[in-house]
Amino acid sequence: MKPLIGITMGDGAGIGPEIIVKALTASALHIICRPVVIGNLATLRKAAVALGLKAEFRKITRLDNAGTQPLTIDVIDLDNLPADLPWGKVSPVAGKAAYEYAAKATQMALAGKLQAIVTAPLNKKALRLGGMEFPGHGEIFAYLSGVKKYAMLLVGGSLQETIRVIHVTEHMSLRQACEKVCQQSVMETIEMADYSLKLLGIPHPRIAVAGLNPHGGEDGLFGNEEIAEIIPAVKAMAAKGYQVRGPFPADTVFYRAVVRQEFDIVVAMYHDQGLIPFKLLGFETGVNVTVGLPFVRTAVSHGTAFDQAGKGVADCRSLTEAIRLATLMVRNAVSVQPPR
Amino acid sequence: MKPLIGITMGDGAGIGPEIIVKALTASALHIICRPVVIGNLATLRKAAVALGLKAEFRKITRLDNAGTQPLTIDVIDLDNLPADLPWGKVSPVAGKAAYEYAAKATQMALAGKLQAIVTAPLNKKALRLGGMEFPGHGEIFAYLSGVKKYAMLLVGGSLQETIRVIHVTEHMSLRQACEKVCQQSVMETIEMADYSLKLLGIPHPRIAVAGLNPHGGEDGLFGNEEIAEIIPAVKAMAAKGYQVRGPFPADTVFYRAVVRQEFDIVVAMYHDQGLIPFKLLGFETGVNVTVGLPFVRTAVSHGTAFDQAGKGVADCRSLTEAIRLATLMVRNAVSVQPPR
Repeated sequence: MKPLIGITMGDGAGIGPEIIVKALTASALHIICRPVVIGNLATLRKAAVALGLKAEFRKITRLDNAGTQPLTIDVIDLDNLPADLPWGKVSPVAGKAAYEYAAKATQMALAGKLQAIVTAPLNKKALRLGGMEFPGHGEIFAYLSGVKKYAMLLVGGSLQETIRVIHVTEHMSLRQACEKVCQQSVMETIEMADYSLKLLGIPHPRIAVAGLNPHGGEDGLFGNEEIAEIIPAVKAMAAKGYQVRGPFPADTVFYRAVVRQEFDIVVAMYHDQGLIPFKLLGFETGVNVTVGLPFVRTAVSHGTAFDQAGKGVADCRSLTEAIRLATLMVRNAVSVQPPR
Repeated sequence: MKPLIGITMGDGAGIGPEIIVKALTASALHIICRPVVIGNLATLRKAAVALGLKAEFRKITRLDNAGTQPLTIDVIDLDNLPADLPWGKVSPVAGKAAYEYAAKATQMALAGKLQAIVTAPLNKKALRLGGMEFPGHGEIFAYLSGVKKYAMLLVGGSLQETIRVIHVTEHMSLRQACEKVCQQSVMETIEMADYSLKLLGIPHPRIAVAGLNPHGGEDGLFGNEEIAEIIPAVKAMAAKGYQVRGPFPADTVFYRAVVRQEFDIVVAMYHDQGLIPFKLLGFETGVNVTVGLPFVRTAVSHGTAFDQAGKGVADCRSLTEAIRLATLMVRNAVSVQPPR
């Protein structure tokens, strides 16, 4: 049986509805999985009109037969948006609705009804105005699953230059990130890197760990975190059998991993250390994966693009890749041992 | 008269001698400038042998007629290395010698005898063993010139994807960089960005300033430096007439500058923020410029590559570009008003 993938609509005023309709009608995703949208049906219909696409929708409440009709988009309709919600505007109701799609999907995934969740983008400001204080989807899923240890893995670039990067720290100030980089957090992220790459079909992942400071701290001259925290973490994980090396100076490690293909993944210490190279290599086809949740979760790597919403021009490649990747991870999960 | 460019040999055990011989014999640099090498003549001869190149050398002491013979490499020979210095090994004598080339070049530049200095790479460990505590050439030149305000500008990428990035902070821990990012330092770097781009032939530079924290601080949620320091700096400089915008989230600003070409330069807050995208786009042809010195100074963007030294395989493209860029900056300096 093909995996059942829940696709949440994100912010209904953004490009989420359009990229979902575009991805599920234009490409052959039904061949590899059973996609089910968790969103607002009327908005999806409006998106199809904006795209000029003749899409068939089916409102479903049970999942028995869901996602099996290639020409039909199955929707769990939360019916939580007004009909006159304008495209491209921050609105509290759309922010709150985006949270509800994520919450519904989490509930279904935790109950074993969905095998993965793929998310279209939400708008942080709308989310906040809707009464929900989260930096993004990743934090919502972690919160709703009761998970403390999780990490953002980004997969992007091109066939020739694939970038995979996982983050020890994420949405916090740079000063706070310096505090949070410790032996424990680095070790946990190395473990998650190894696990998630196995899910991606790389059986023996070669893991590179970046330093925090310029030149990897230059033997303590430019900061002590490498000596005190990162080197012990790498040594401990290597001793456990992980194929991990570092810390390497952050300014060359991405070149070595991406261009020279010496490593399959880079463990980045802070948000921008990983996001800068990831976005530079083109995030149109990039995918964001939350590792450490009790279910597979991938996401588009772009935002709501309010300036494009309702115009039928949005690029659905990132969503398509996110659905493909989620499917791949679900399939490989059968044979990969999760960390304890 | 063509500009007289001093090329320092750097660490004599590294690839410096080879890339100098290769660049000055193989390419047409003599057409645009008068190159003079400040180094150790015997080592340069050994490099020519390693390369299998028939190079003509001339030991000079006066600059009157220097650098005018296309088939001859003119050398100010400091004669400060032993004949049996091995390739590819850290050695105190080579470290000290590299400092001496830089010191001699500075003296000549400050006296107006050289119009620019271009440096082959030195080895920091050798430099330290040789009794000289500097993170790199840039700091040596600033120290010897008595300059406090200077910045590292990197120019690289390809014709299609040019990256130019200048740094507010450089060789220090990430924690210290967070401390050093202030309104004053950001304003000074914006000024240097504008000036150096004019020297590079861009008359109306469009300057983007990166944030320090993830998402540019997200309105203070992930750090306060944007609100307290960076935004006031950008506003003040824009009010003075500079074409400057930001702070922008660091993870998209390079994409916007390099791929979408919305900006001519990015002002980065810390070392790796600029170095990561620069090196990822290929540093084989990249050039490092020290802005703020009383003379034009460019450098290769790679290191001594001890593993390649003496094998005749080193890539001289970065040095060639560094010499070209120095020449261009000297030419444009005639018509560009330096900052007060």
